[in-house]
Amino acid sequence: MNAYTPTERTQVRRLPKRGSFDRDVIHSILDAGFICHLGFIHEGNPIVLPTGYGRSGDTLYLHGSLASRMFKAAASGIEICATVTIVDGLVLAKSAFHHSMNYRSVAVFGRARPVEDREQKLEALRLFTEHVLPGRWEKIRQPSELELKATLVLALPLEEVSAKVRTGPPLDDEEDLAWPVWAGVLPLRLRADDPVPPEGANGVADAWTKRRLAGTIIE
Amino acid sequence: MNAYTPTERTQVRRLPKRGSFDRDVIHSILDAGFICHLGFIHEGNPIVLPTGYGRSGDTLYLHGSLASRMFKAAASGIEICATVTIVDGLVLAKSAFHHSMNYRSVAVFGRARPVEDREQKLEALRLFTEHVLPGRWEKIRQPSELELKATLVLALPLEEVSAKVRTGPPLDDEEDLAWPVWAGVLPLRLRADDPVPPEGANGVADAWTKRRLAGTIIE
Repeated sequence: MNAYTPTERTQVRRLPKRGSFDRDVIHSILDAGFICHLGFIHEGNPIVLPTGYGRSGDTLYLHGSLASRMFKAAASGIEICATVTIVDGLVLAKSAFHHSMNYRSVAVFGRARPVEDREQKLEALRLFTEHVLPGRWEKIRQPSELELKATLVLALPLEEVSAKVRTGPPLDDEEDLAWPVWAGVLPLRLRADDPVPPEGANGVADAWTKRRLAGTIIE
Repeated sequence: MNAYTPTERTQVRRLPKRGSFDRDVIHSILDAGFICHLGFIHEGNPIVLPTGYGRSGDTLYLHGSLASRMFKAAASGIEICATVTIVDGLVLAKSAFHHSMNYRSVAVFGRARPVEDREQKLEALRLFTEHVLPGRWEKIRQPSELELKATLVLALPLEEVSAKVRTGPPLDDEEDLAWPVWAGVLPLRLRADDPVPPEGANGVADAWTKRRLAGTIIE
């Protein structure tokens, strides 16, 4: 198995059968989501902020702004934790206790470094766009030098990383199976509604945008 | 305005016009989401874990398991940060730089305490279920004493809390408006697919479950 190496932090102690270090599983979850929650310590206290990201090989690129003091703290080489969670469904059991959720989650631990190299930064920005909107990068106005400088990109190596996944039906106790309530899974999916043009635009979405509409954003 | 008091940690420095301390805004975001990302410090490092929650007045109840060592650490009265993020849409601009997301996010800072009182714990568990599945609590098999004991509920006071919200169209630079690419917002919504019964069940969802189907999980 092509897998990451478990560490003290990434050992999934609770329900270890739900844990995975498999590289393909972890990459597929990171590629299916597009928002991570970035945790770091600021003046002694934990802070959790949402931010966009992209993945290339064994590097997670995090998107930030130089105007964010807290994001700059995360760029200074301190330990961070980036967690991506995709909720796949509500698990409705017969008993309150066995209600659950189906989900895929990845936690990445490590130290991020700011991406300084111009070409690498541009590639990370391309990833952020292509990650959620494949095919769009080459159509849009590319970043100017000033815009590149105003964007903070962090690179977090995928080294200390684990996944946790729950799938499948509710696991009710035998003696509850006759309880008179529906049980099963309500699958959840993030979907796009009709695109909304900015005021003043002609309101017609192009073929590319319409295709996105028909599809699902999170697979 | 009925608002929470800003503190050093909750001041939104970046784009402060997107920040809010309004109690109604904050409560509505917490009530619309159902997963938070809980950040805390464990052996000197930040850890971010997803978990379910419910709100009652100015208390956020967090759902955990006594089997989770890390969750027990969060229950020991250390500083935590619980962040809820709802992505409402992808903001497609003419320029790469002005691509963004519409979202609603709330960060709560403070110290959580474990809920020990039996009635209060039961009420929190009711909230977890009713929060995502209104009307279901009274239909399901209620928790046994053993199940109650095996469930860890944390209460986090809503005192140090702020919201950040982006809405509306892309904000392109004047000189980019003629760029030949569609710009606007792709609204995103979490929706339920057809319910999946557990193997062996008769496959017919009840009226309540069907009603959920027609609706949107996150409003």
